[in-house]
Amino acid sequence: MQKLAMLYEGKAKRVYETDQKGVYIVSYKDDATAFNGKKKGSILGKGAINNQVTNHLMQLLSKEGIPTHFVAQLSETETAVKAVRIVPLEVIVRSIAAGSLSERLGLKEGTKLASTVIEFCYKRDDLNDPLVNNSHIKALGLATEQQLELITKYSLKINDILSAYLVEVGIALIDFKLEFGITSEGELVLADEISSDTCRFWDIKTGKKLDKDRFRRDLGDVEEAYHEVMQRLLGRA
Amino acid sequence: MQKLAMLYEGKAKRVYETDQKGVYIVSYKDDATAFNGKKKGSILGKGAINNQVTNHLMQLLSKEGIPTHFVAQLSETETAVKAVRIVPLEVIVRSIAAGSLSERLGLKEGTKLASTVIEFCYKRDDLNDPLVNNSHIKALGLATEQQLELITKYSLKINDILSAYLVEVGIALIDFKLEFGITSEGELVLADEISSDTCRFWDIKTGKKLDKDRFRRDLGDVEEAYHEVMQRLLGRA
Repeated sequence: MQKLAMLYEGKAKRVYETDQKGVYIVSYKDDATAFNGKKKGSILGKGAINNQVTNHLMQLLSKEGIPTHFVAQLSETETAVKAVRIVPLEVIVRSIAAGSLSERLGLKEGTKLASTVIEFCYKRDDLNDPLVNNSHIKALGLATEQQLELITKYSLKINDILSAYLVEVGIALIDFKLEFGITSEGELVLADEISSDTCRFWDIKTGKKLDKDRFRRDLGDVEEAYHEVMQRLLGRA
Repeated sequence: MQKLAMLYEGKAKRVYETDQKGVYIVSYKDDATAFNGKKKGSILGKGAINNQVTNHLMQLLSKEGIPTHFVAQLSETETAVKAVRIVPLEVIVRSIAAGSLSERLGLKEGTKLASTVIEFCYKRDDLNDPLVNNSHIKALGLATEQQLELITKYSLKINDILSAYLVEVGIALIDFKLEFGITSEGELVLADEISSDTCRFWDIKTGKKLDKDRFRRDLGDVEEAYHEVMQRLLGRA
């Protein structure tokens, strides 16, 4: 497969066209940002880890019936994915209060939520990705009602699958962010990534944060935490 | 009816117990606040106007099948209402983008929304009344699913009734905020007020704002705008 023009450069990934119809290549970077790009840095080896962790989890989800954009891993940092138009929503699923939810609703970080919280944020860096509800999504035409129903169904199912899977390797899934895309055939598929950049992973025994909060909050051991997750999931660091 | 102990003093109203079981007295004040109390002032005659406008609209809604807390007007500034436990949600219904929606979603004020937006904010002054969705409401136990369904149904119906009614007096209903309460018998009823303090009213011909934005934004003619709305609705100023 031939990598052609770069279509998009995000904070943590580049996306390229390829010579194959309907297929893009995603290339993961070591760059790290937080607080909507206000904090910038680099996490050594993050690109390779996030690529491999994402692909591992996407394949797991695919086996459980969740359609994903994954096609094939090309190298440690590059993956072929289905070409999609990204639905401009960040979907956040939360089991335990942390981060922005704790701040906004005055819940102590670590509080178990009585029921799963699912949030949609409108992907608009210039507006700081505002929280939106189903009526905003409809009024702005960000997704059809059918797409939104499917996104909600998939996201809650993904929470069940990943939570159960991660418990087996001693990780509590606190919350995570998903993005979905629409293929040229109109299929809604899970896109983007699932990694320590986009999930809160806490060690079940020690409570140690194994995710980007180590970078956001200057907790140290950032690279080690990313490696630890990969080690537990793929059996290699 | 005897006014007994004051139960609650809000930014614009006081609520008193009475010697009648299940009945409170609401007393409207001229005090005006904005931006979660950061801006303070007074609008001469506001208490009397908001009391009478609210009662006029509540009685209209009641006739159209919306249960409300209204019992009887006692004076220009005081009304007997059903004693309720307020559901800790502000319900905002929007037909035209304005105020916080315009800011949050980057929509020019005055943009007609493609479909009605309904928002719930958690009534918590210390958190600046954060926007919440149905999953937050469930997780926090702010309302039952049944109550939330009924609140949503009533709010959208109130929008239809009020919008149609106000057009007849040359007023466009841009958006408004509602609060609901639960009586001791467990009935969900519309509570709080419906006035220039809680609605955006724009003159249909001139676009002139006839609501609290005149106070919030220092537009002048504040008292005149409140009087104008009462004049058009009740035929007297």
